[in-house]
Amino acid sequence: MYNIAHFQDLINKEIAEKQYPGNPIELYEPIRYIMALGGKRMRPALLLMACDLFEGSIMKALKPALAVEVFHNFTLMHDDIMDKAPLRRGSATVHEKWCDSIAILSGDVMLVEAYQLMMQVDDAILRNVLNIFSETATAVCEGQQTDMNFESLQDVSIRDYIEMIRLKTAVLLAGSMKIGALIGNASADDAEQIHRFGENLGLAFQLQDDILDVYGDPEKFGKQVGGDIIANKKTFLLIKALEQAEELDKEELAYWLKEENAEPEIKVNAVTEIYNRLGVRQLAEHQMNTFAEKALSALEKIPANMEKKKQLRAFAEQLLIREN
Amino acid sequence: MYNIAHFQDLINKEIAEKQYPGNPIELYEPIRYIMALGGKRMRPALLLMACDLFEGSIMKALKPALAVEVFHNFTLMHDDIMDKAPLRRGSATVHEKWCDSIAILSGDVMLVEAYQLMMQVDDAILRNVLNIFSETATAVCEGQQTDMNFESLQDVSIRDYIEMIRLKTAVLLAGSMKIGALIGNASADDAEQIHRFGENLGLAFQLQDDILDVYGDPEKFGKQVGGDIIANKKTFLLIKALEQAEELDKEELAYWLKEENAEPEIKVNAVTEIYNRLGVRQLAEHQMNTFAEKALSALEKIPANMEKKKQLRAFAEQLLIREN
Repeated sequence: MYNIAHFQDLINKEIAEKQYPGNPIELYEPIRYIMALGGKRMRPALLLMACDLFEGSIMKALKPALAVEVFHNFTLMHDDIMDKAPLRRGSATVHEKWCDSIAILSGDVMLVEAYQLMMQVDDAILRNVLNIFSETATAVCEGQQTDMNFESLQDVSIRDYIEMIRLKTAVLLAGSMKIGALIGNASADDAEQIHRFGENLGLAFQLQDDILDVYGDPEKFGKQVGGDIIANKKTFLLIKALEQAEELDKEELAYWLKEENAEPEIKVNAVTEIYNRLGVRQLAEHQMNTFAEKALSALEKIPANMEKKKQLRAFAEQLLIREN
Repeated sequence: MYNIAHFQDLINKEIAEKQYPGNPIELYEPIRYIMALGGKRMRPALLLMACDLFEGSIMKALKPALAVEVFHNFTLMHDDIMDKAPLRRGSATVHEKWCDSIAILSGDVMLVEAYQLMMQVDDAILRNVLNIFSETATAVCEGQQTDMNFESLQDVSIRDYIEMIRLKTAVLLAGSMKIGALIGNASADDAEQIHRFGENLGLAFQLQDDILDVYGDPEKFGKQVGGDIIANKKTFLLIKALEQAEELDKEELAYWLKEENAEPEIKVNAVTEIYNRLGVRQLAEHQMNTFAEKALSALEKIPANMEKKKQLRAFAEQLLIREN
């Protein structure tokens, strides 16, 4: 049986071996660059594991797995322009290292490339796979737009927030796994269960990300702790806090959200204190666990090799109990 | 038999009837907006005419025709950001009316939408059609990057220029027509001839555009006459002039290319005078006619209904003898 690291190695090997045209260099060099920045390769690994769960051929799933990783990096390249982000995984973002135009156009080519890779499946499932991929891609764009809209909205409900992260994050995990299942010749029912597993895992994963942004170990988390608080980003924690806060807490939270010249560290500490008083971390963890349980219960319903299910469960837990 | 206006009406009806999701409105409203700005609908019309030439079903070709128009408008939406263009067909560009982020993301959704529309062909040709479409899309991006690179290059040869317009403009006409031919069940040989027709027509069309930018009737041309001269855009005319100019003409041309504060009208008149002295308009027209003849000779080789071939010829001539 394969282990998780083996799946990740396979994908990293695919990425390293991928050839791009030599010209125009400005179009293809940024693609090589962002793909080489690393990452957990979570989406392609889940696609391969879903295929393997149904005893499918890993070799047949490699190009579609690469497709979802190329697609994911395309969204990062374009999102970074919109967010004016200077850094991605500790290195300069593409629009910073080159320029906006190159980041737009290289990203466009990546989306086309993702389709070309995704097409490398058997004729019998081609249409179905591409439909899932297109619906997933559209959902991810809708999620990004909804997330940008939240910046200027006063009232975002937990329900709106969950729908946004479903679109922006969870649907791609779900779609990747469903495609993997189809390559592995899973039944429609089983493909649906693995989709549910992926979607709920994605929701749990994003909530974990929200929690780690505030409560993570700065050395292990790899991002600036409190970044979401500094940017007034509407996360599960902030939305819940705005919902729960009364009197003094409410006033203080409103003050920090409006204060534009606050010293970052002081603001992060103050808002974290409010979060602690309101217990929003526990509420977020509870919600995260609810999604994780839904994911695992969908996995249980699939009649597959117990060892492989155990491995998927282990990967899920590894994703959810990241260095916090 | 259909006439050209009928094909254009069919496409405009498809565009008008196309439904988009209601949410997020920021993502879908720009798509409706740019698609409604109009235009000759040249690419989808050529796709339908290619299908009709082989006695294929126009109804079966409508969604793929819409796909190429959506794709073309996606490229316009993204190119306008890169070019910082304020206007498109006399109306505000999407990034001006909304913002860069919305123009990036709406464009991304359009590319996915184009794939979804292009998939609406029979299983037997699905893979072939999507391969042509993906290769075409990649070529268009390569052409746009090459065009941007030309801005900072001193030496661009006519050969480089022709390759750039082949990628940026001609390949999409060629790909659209080849896809139309495949939907019409054309043989591989005939599909290749129609591809050659489209590619050469596209090359001729772009040269015509270069000529009209300087010599077109301002009232009929619909763009600012001399816009390419003002922007020092490396067109066939300028490249040929740089190649041919000697002594005083060479010095004067170099002066105008360097002079950043020139009065637009004076610069346009002066450079046009140089073009006239060098006869570059005639050279461009000769090159255009060479491409047009290649296109027509490819068309001649296709054993199809004479009336329909005549109609395609008429459409080609109409595109090439635009109001100048």
